Amino acid sequence: MARIATLIADMFEDCEYTEPAASFREHGHDVVHVGLQAGLQVWGQQDHTPVMIDLSTASADPADFDALFIPGGYSPDKLRTDAAAVRLVRSFMEEGKPVFVICRGPQLLITACVLAGRKVTGWKSIIQDIANAGGIYTDREVVVDGNLISSRNPGDLQAFNYACLEMLS
Amino acid sequence: MARIATLIADMFEDCEYTEPAASFREHGHDVVHVGLQAGLQVWGQQDHTPVMIDLSTASADPADFDALFIPGGYSPDKLRTDAAAVRLVRSFMEEGKPVFVICRGPQLLITACVLAGRKVTGWKSIIQDIANAGGIYTDREVVVDGNLISSRNPGDLQAFNYACLEMLS
Repeated sequence: MARIATLIADMFEDCEYTEPAASFREHGHDVVHVGLQAGLQVWGQQDHTPVMIDLSTASADPADFDALFIPGGYSPDKLRTDAAAVRLVRSFMEEGKPVFVICRGPQLLITACVLAGRKVTGWKSIIQDIANAGGIYTDREVVVDGNLISSRNPGDLQAFNYACLEMLS
Repeated sequence: MARIATLIADMFEDCEYTEPAASFREHGHDVVHVGLQAGLQVWGQQDHTPVMIDLSTASADPADFDALFIPGGYSPDKLRTDAAAVRLVRSFMEEGKPVFVICRGPQLLITACVLAGRKVTGWKSIIQDIANAGGIYTDREVVVDGNLISSRNPGDLQAFNYACLEMLS
């Protein structure tokens, strides 16, 4: 069973966290919340879902995890200014471990400079940012490129969850 | 006196709208709110400042305005998915009319593909996006490059307002 680092901060899109996390746990995987400060509660932007941060980005060791999951909303915008969060993302991508991003999740891949030549999708507001980072944007519900799985929005969650579970199995 | 198109949507950073707008009006300039839908009320993300949209992006004619002002917060993220908003921004930049952006305002310049070779600053989360768009990011309270004035955050407002008024005088 996989141990999944879930990189999350305030203003995450609730269902883009709750639905994949429930699906991961249902299949026996372990969801660990990694954020700006351990012990801090963060909140979803629509339904105010509370999430307790288990581990700070600075103290999270990529070697302790099998996969990385980045929910969307404005949470990625808050995390990309944190150097430790960016290092963590870069490490998972460089080691080729599974990385699951949805909505504005690719913003963290852009700041980590790991999108060049990679096929990826995401929320429509960041399409130009993805292209400028060298990513190959595709308007599909789920895009799988090697270790990287991406989706656009809550409407894609079923396909996203299925693809993520497939990669972990 | 100048007629200033203020491009604004929900979740703008309150003071990044209220302080420049007050300063513009105090000096006799006209502040017109351009947004996704005329007659719609939009709200600031901190203090819930209400702003009534005067004109939709689709019906705003750049020829009717002397300058463009884009407050920050998450408002620019919401506006950059609107083709008419992006066209409006591109038009002001191509005509060399004054363009004032703060915080995440440069996101609209990125989607409009008008940042290449331009000196600009902005909120720290979008530094990599600015660089990938060919912009020359500078970490200063206010950056003036031709018709384009930019600042980083609320702490820069005094310098931002001063530079904008100077350009309009």
